[in-house]
Amino acid sequence: MKIGLIQMAAGMDKQANLEKAAAQVAACKDQGADLAALPEIFNGPYSNDYFRQYAEPQGGRSWQALSRMAAEQKIWLVGGSIPEIDEAGRVYNTSFVFDDQGRQVARHRKVHLFDVDIEGGQYFKESDTFTPGSQATVFDTPWGKIGLCICFDFRFPQLAWQMTKQGARIIVVPAAFNMTTGPAHWELLFRQRAVDNQCFTLGVAPARDEGGLYVSYGNSIVVSPWGDALWRAGAEETFHVAELDLGLVEKVRRELPLVRSALASASVF
Amino acid sequence: MKIGLIQMAAGMDKQANLEKAAAQVAACKDQGADLAALPEIFNGPYSNDYFRQYAEPQGGRSWQALSRMAAEQKIWLVGGSIPEIDEAGRVYNTSFVFDDQGRQVARHRKVHLFDVDIEGGQYFKESDTFTPGSQATVFDTPWGKIGLCICFDFRFPQLAWQMTKQGARIIVVPAAFNMTTGPAHWELLFRQRAVDNQCFTLGVAPARDEGGLYVSYGNSIVVSPWGDALWRAGAEETFHVAELDLGLVEKVRRELPLVRSALASASVF
Repeated sequence: MKIGLIQMAAGMDKQANLEKAAAQVAACKDQGADLAALPEIFNGPYSNDYFRQYAEPQGGRSWQALSRMAAEQKIWLVGGSIPEIDEAGRVYNTSFVFDDQGRQVARHRKVHLFDVDIEGGQYFKESDTFTPGSQATVFDTPWGKIGLCICFDFRFPQLAWQMTKQGARIIVVPAAFNMTTGPAHWELLFRQRAVDNQCFTLGVAPARDEGGLYVSYGNSIVVSPWGDALWRAGAEETFHVAELDLGLVEKVRRELPLVRSALASASVF
Repeated sequence: MKIGLIQMAAGMDKQANLEKAAAQVAACKDQGADLAALPEIFNGPYSNDYFRQYAEPQGGRSWQALSRMAAEQKIWLVGGSIPEIDEAGRVYNTSFVFDDQGRQVARHRKVHLFDVDIEGGQYFKESDTFTPGSQATVFDTPWGKIGLCICFDFRFPQLAWQMTKQGARIIVVPAAFNMTTGPAHWELLFRQRAVDNQCFTLGVAPARDEGGLYVSYGNSIVVSPWGDALWRAGAEETFHVAELDLGLVEKVRRELPLVRSALASASVF
């Protein structure tokens, strides 16, 4: 299976962001990708000052653009994330997933909101705007089940384990770490979650924009079920199509039976 | 708080192993350690051919030696692990913990047995001899609660999380990774478990003996709640007294509220 990771920077112009995303999805398809993945909040600025302003309902303009990209390119698409607003006016950090005919097959609302205040480092409080989701998300594809969560979600081993229990063999994570948490924890996290869950982990980050409202670490990454980083981007805009040997998941789970043991003792812990 | 990590090699001679351990515990005390920790199976060879032969009941010869080391040196002691045999003849991989008067304050029986068969790498099947334990272990000390598990146990985030839920701010892990899993996963594991649980993690390994029945990776390690490796041994016999700033646990948990969030959503996942 081939997955395209799109490390793009999002500016203030929503239409320009959507057009850039569409061009990158097409480029992934050109390189044979079966599925493409966009980064967290790819259609506007990552800022509490703008989330509500850029928010759209499910089925809105960005959703339609994503559906069209998938259908036109005949490619599965993890639509990074966008601010989603519901009927009651609540705003979520939401990832919509489409099959290769443009039909929505999954929706993940970020469960764990990014509320941090690190001395001499990053401050952010997503919960000023966002309402949290409450469910782990796994969706079916012709290549098997894929888990999906957003950025800070992935810091919680309990959530990753829910996805593994539900059969995920790949976990895709649109995510925007920053210049404090990125160097400290990004690669470590994607490698260890891969080892713990014996699955492929993919982090898809916005490119770094030093002048932006939030400075993303970038460094989109692909990690094998053994914990090896197979590819890692730098800070710049780029895309990469990774070929995943899904047989590795079964091989590692057989040789080092972590998932099997954990399932067997799930009633104890 | 100061903890001494003792990276010793165990030979066939049980009495010599116990004497070496006693000398190293005394050396830790000389450097001001409040607690000392020995490696996994420190009183004999790590081999299914010998576990039962070296096994002793709780209160047996090695247990008494450990209790005496703690009392004589007035030091808390995590007694690595030894093969323990119960009344029914079942053998466990067990860690006994003593306070500074030599009283047993905890006992951990390894829950997750090391059964692996890696193509071109390590083969081992602990369950040929050992019976698994069934409980997470946390004990109280004057410096706060300390979690304890043994080697393969630590690969399971569910077990680490049990310790965190029970209040552990330090997790001590007598462990013997090998030359396949050590280079691939050892440091990664101790760093990410520290980040996930926002606590200090300490791995205490046997020194490497290239001619031994099982070749330990060594590399005993101390990691901060932010995931920084504060100290790491090489392959050789050594000991190290690490000073832990326990205020870091509260600082990291306040700045990046992973444990707080996970506790709040424990009912969901």
